[in-house]
Amino acid sequence: MKALLLVKPKPEELQRLDQQFPSVSFSTDTKIAGEAEIVLGWDKTLAQQFLKGHHLKWVQAKSAGIDYFPLEKFRERKILLTNASGLHSRYIAETVTGYILMENRGFRESFKRPQTWLTPEVLEAREQAALILGTGKIGREIARYCRFLGMQVIGVNRHGMDSHLVDVFDDVISIKNFQTAGYQTKINYLISTLPGTPETKHFLNAKVFRKIAPGYTFINVGRGNTLVEDDLLELVDESWIRSAYLDVFEHEPLETVSRLWHHDKIVITPHIAGQIPHFRAALYPLFATNLDNYLTGKPMHNLVDLQAGY
Amino acid sequence: MKALLLVKPKPEELQRLDQQFPSVSFSTDTKIAGEAEIVLGWDKTLAQQFLKGHHLKWVQAKSAGIDYFPLEKFRERKILLTNASGLHSRYIAETVTGYILMENRGFRESFKRPQTWLTPEVLEAREQAALILGTGKIGREIARYCRFLGMQVIGVNRHGMDSHLVDVFDDVISIKNFQTAGYQTKINYLISTLPGTPETKHFLNAKVFRKIAPGYTFINVGRGNTLVEDDLLELVDESWIRSAYLDVFEHEPLETVSRLWHHDKIVITPHIAGQIPHFRAALYPLFATNLDNYLTGKPMHNLVDLQAGY
Repeated sequence: MKALLLVKPKPEELQRLDQQFPSVSFSTDTKIAGEAEIVLGWDKTLAQQFLKGHHLKWVQAKSAGIDYFPLEKFRERKILLTNASGLHSRYIAETVTGYILMENRGFRESFKRPQTWLTPEVLEAREQAALILGTGKIGREIARYCRFLGMQVIGVNRHGMDSHLVDVFDDVISIKNFQTAGYQTKINYLISTLPGTPETKHFLNAKVFRKIAPGYTFINVGRGNTLVEDDLLELVDESWIRSAYLDVFEHEPLETVSRLWHHDKIVITPHIAGQIPHFRAALYPLFATNLDNYLTGKPMHNLVDLQAGY
Repeated sequence: MKALLLVKPKPEELQRLDQQFPSVSFSTDTKIAGEAEIVLGWDKTLAQQFLKGHHLKWVQAKSAGIDYFPLEKFRERKILLTNASGLHSRYIAETVTGYILMENRGFRESFKRPQTWLTPEVLEAREQAALILGTGKIGREIARYCRFLGMQVIGVNRHGMDSHLVDVFDDVISIKNFQTAGYQTKINYLISTLPGTPETKHFLNAKVFRKIAPGYTFINVGRGNTLVEDDLLELVDESWIRSAYLDVFEHEPLETVSRLWHHDKIVITPHIAGQIPHFRAALYPLFATNLDNYLTGKPMHNLVDLQAGY
């Protein structure tokens, strides 16, 4: 059984795998793409080769979002796909907290006008509420950080409140409810962790934004194509939306000329929200556990629902 | 007994004071400067007038730092001075946390090169240590936030570890020890909350900076004159110091041409670290409590040691 490792292991990591799984032959050589039953990571340019040999049975992705996989083909062929959800949560929560503190402490105003000694507005976290779209691992970790700051936290998901969410969110509403009625109680931050799926595409548009009482800051650490960027610009320009912090974009890398880079009320980071300092050290234990589950027929961690797309 | 309020109260705040303290006549009119026994706030341009009438007995400052008061005169005349220490702690801790997250999540690198899609280095908070100069209310609150991020926290003060600090710091060393031996165990953040006193003036110079193992980020939310700015620039240029986040300066406002504004590895905020969103609502209760203590001869909160200067 061949496994192709597209995230290069350290020698000691490879050694550990060889010892733990003697029945698997591990390789980092993409020449075996057509013969691999298992792939760690992904490479779009090799997708054809992965699929043509009909050997591929399981892919462990290195990201939480898996919208760059040929999901339909995976469904057809019953190829298992597991994602790296959970590994990035803490870092995304740190990034979001960084954004919130920048806004609350007046950094944005100050950084957008360098060399200027100004007195920016500052905001009180203990009086604020955040609405978090998505109550998965990432949404829950963001909620934990927001609560440490003293904020109230409301979650939005498919099913509403649930026993494993009561300790994390002050309230949870369903996305259907949110899409229809919006949210009229004042919120200060709208934080999206939505994955990129056919259902979420352009979900965040003027119609939805206007259903939330004005004056909030929008944060996107989900996927770029969930947002209609022109609608966001329009609403920021008219101050319906107070400001925006964006890490993901419809087209990446974001073009140098994009108005988003140049806007006083918009802060851009180059898709780094979930960047992990020691990525391999975090990914390999997950891969090894899942490989053991795969070989022994146990339920796998982070199995993607290929129908739902996350 | 006359009290001059240099922080303008809301009508309801004034009413509350009038009711609670019928023996005191409150005014916001600086014409009574020479007759006031009590002053809330301070105005350097009125200092002569405050002192000439020999009526002044107590000043409640609106800041934590009190280096802008004529402390020698206060000592001579036995004028009581209380500061607003504690009110700003949470906000300064939020600001410092904002700086740390900016550095750890790669924001600095990204913001210093706008319109550039780059992959900055990211750092792991759980592997980091912070050395905090000052273990007063501000230092302790910063420690609490650093610990939430998963960092190890070492305090530096005059006396070393103390029973009320064991729950907040992993270790506390004396400033004498620090000044002589520095700190050789790797730290990632050197955070100064030092007040501006004759003793702390230019305390943070090349000699001290070089006694700390290289590679750390320096944060100054204390006072500007505790730092030799040219020494900092030199050490940042040679990468002994990784980067710096400065909120206070020897001369404020910081000049537009200052190299500090323009440096890739230095982030400037315009003395806003402790800015309080609802300042009066926080200050007036402290003032009322202290006024009651003053009138009834009870020990006052936040009494400044005029000899030590903080």
